[in-house]
Amino acid sequence: MQYFKYEIIKTCKQSGARLGRLHTPHGVVETPCFMPVGTQATVKAMTPRDLDDAGASIILSNTYHLYMRPGHELIKSAGGLHSFMCWNKPILTDSGGFQVFSLAKMNSIKEDGVEFNSHIDGSRHFFTPEKVMEIEQALGADIAMCFDECAPYPSEYDYAKAAMDRTHRWAARCKLAHEREDQALFGIVQGSTYKDLRIESAKVLSDMDFTGYGIGGLSVGEPKEVMYEMLEEMMPHMPFAKPRYLMGVGSPDCLLEGVLRGIDMFDCVLQTRIARNGLALTSEGKRMLRNAEYERDFTPIDPACDCYACKNFTKGYIRHLVKAKEILAAQLITMHNLRFSLNLMAKIRQAIAEDRLLDLKKELEASGSLNL
Amino acid sequence: MQYFKYEIIKTCKQSGARLGRLHTPHGVVETPCFMPVGTQATVKAMTPRDLDDAGASIILSNTYHLYMRPGHELIKSAGGLHSFMCWNKPILTDSGGFQVFSLAKMNSIKEDGVEFNSHIDGSRHFFTPEKVMEIEQALGADIAMCFDECAPYPSEYDYAKAAMDRTHRWAARCKLAHEREDQALFGIVQGSTYKDLRIESAKVLSDMDFTGYGIGGLSVGEPKEVMYEMLEEMMPHMPFAKPRYLMGVGSPDCLLEGVLRGIDMFDCVLQTRIARNGLALTSEGKRMLRNAEYERDFTPIDPACDCYACKNFTKGYIRHLVKAKEILAAQLITMHNLRFSLNLMAKIRQAIAEDRLLDLKKELEASGSLNL
Repeated sequence: MQYFKYEIIKTCKQSGARLGRLHTPHGVVETPCFMPVGTQATVKAMTPRDLDDAGASIILSNTYHLYMRPGHELIKSAGGLHSFMCWNKPILTDSGGFQVFSLAKMNSIKEDGVEFNSHIDGSRHFFTPEKVMEIEQALGADIAMCFDECAPYPSEYDYAKAAMDRTHRWAARCKLAHEREDQALFGIVQGSTYKDLRIESAKVLSDMDFTGYGIGGLSVGEPKEVMYEMLEEMMPHMPFAKPRYLMGVGSPDCLLEGVLRGIDMFDCVLQTRIARNGLALTSEGKRMLRNAEYERDFTPIDPACDCYACKNFTKGYIRHLVKAKEILAAQLITMHNLRFSLNLMAKIRQAIAEDRLLDLKKELEASGSLNL
Repeated sequence: MQYFKYEIIKTCKQSGARLGRLHTPHGVVETPCFMPVGTQATVKAMTPRDLDDAGASIILSNTYHLYMRPGHELIKSAGGLHSFMCWNKPILTDSGGFQVFSLAKMNSIKEDGVEFNSHIDGSRHFFTPEKVMEIEQALGADIAMCFDECAPYPSEYDYAKAAMDRTHRWAARCKLAHEREDQALFGIVQGSTYKDLRIESAKVLSDMDFTGYGIGGLSVGEPKEVMYEMLEEMMPHMPFAKPRYLMGVGSPDCLLEGVLRGIDMFDCVLQTRIARNGLALTSEGKRMLRNAEYERDFTPIDPACDCYACKNFTKGYIRHLVKAKEILAAQLITMHNLRFSLNLMAKIRQAIAEDRLLDLKKELEASGSLNL
């Protein structure tokens, strides 16, 4: 039985962007796609029903967090992550690589793996490629990511190269340790902001023949132009027929620019995180709903949006909820920000299908949709 | 046009409890009923859709809080509270009487009204019966409560009597100041824990001919038996044909005991507040979902419940959400606790219709449903 298939439906004649379809054990994902982030086995403030309503076709969850709490063995005994969190569509788990380098404390990187302290209780843990494969297979997402070493920005060339080389060796170990046929394993391209390293990493990982490819170590502090340049450099060396996932991106403008450079998948906490601070993405640019200007504004967050929040509630009401620190504020703005971003991806897919993605870009820039 | 009508459908031959139907401008409420509390124009962690799903037919909102934030004039300009919060079924607003005596600081009670400091910013405010009627009419709930003086427990007899007498004089002023025909005004019986005062208050307010009657100043710290005794003493002196609302009650056992003593309406923050602490009401008694015993319990909160949380999620998952401080924990447990309590009221109404409320009481006691 073939669990996974990636079809390229077409490429946009105007932009070269790709329209695809990723088949997984839990359903089909139309690409380019945006994955809402459910760090602790929940997309914050959303029920699975809310996620369905927003149009999510795949979500991401974080291996590091789930390993720490409640533990991958517990999730496995609950029947896996889909069953545990009651989400029956596709899930992708990251590898924890980014988290053990950014979130955990006192890392010690060795060839075998990384030793680190839990950000919750300080307890000592050791992640190896084999251990991470064990965890991700226990979680049972549709797509697992290889354990990688994510170099911070900026990194010296030698450090970046060493981290990349180790990431390649770890990728080989992940591939060897990974056994679940109903779970796809994606490699992760590293190389910091060095063109030659990015190209080398793309080539090395291509030869390893993963089901798909993550692009890691970008959107970690470097200017957007640098990220775009890296994508342009490496893309000719990425396998055409496999899904390409730009990790941790992004904002509306980055989503569009990523697609224009051949990216098929994205994830980002931005949409849900800013919602909990009262910030909404709209077709006319961002709106800080806490602001006094919305006090008596009895129109929706975004009149162009069809989400539950926009169909039923006003900016004035939501501002009140934000000011009063009510949970419903987070619920409504998160619903909207996710719907906005998932709808943006739907528009992008439609524009690719109609060979007019560059036209769409102009329209979105003119309306302010890409502003954040 | 007659906006309000209260029908007593029948009384239970076994218990004497009443089954009724309260007609309001925003729909019919089957009684006895439980009103979820939406203090700040939102039932915490619930969308109006969630409230509908839970079976809520009427909710309560707090005049004091809405006056403070966002202000009644703002809500009026939004088209009233129903429109502001997108809840198109009946709403009852309390009068702020309880809050200015319990929540606000440095009260100064005068014959004309109460001076107090905001619990939000310390600003000075003055509530009179006329001012409260202005606020409640601006909010535009289906049912407004008279401004009353709620004596704390315990209170000396003389203090309790003075507070009751003032409550009666304020009730007369509220009636005079209240003009909206599409809003019912309920009087509030006071009298602390003194039988003669409770009887006197019931008689005096009965003569004033309100559309319905609140019973205030109970469930404020006195033993439950004292509350039940007060209800028994005053009930023969309450108008039979009008709805009787026991304010701020209650827990499952108090809901049942109140109905057995002739109460038609209840409200309580308990269901939503304990939910945010991880505590669930179930047909087998309360469950603290944070507890380690639920870590690997992959069964619903309450197998007898038909709410979204119980149909889709396990105690093990919800425990994880509680431990991880995820908003979804509050959402799911609140959904369940409200559904549980609204379903309890539905069972009570059914039992009254079938003349078997005392039988139901025995069944509920045996199962543990009334334990908290």
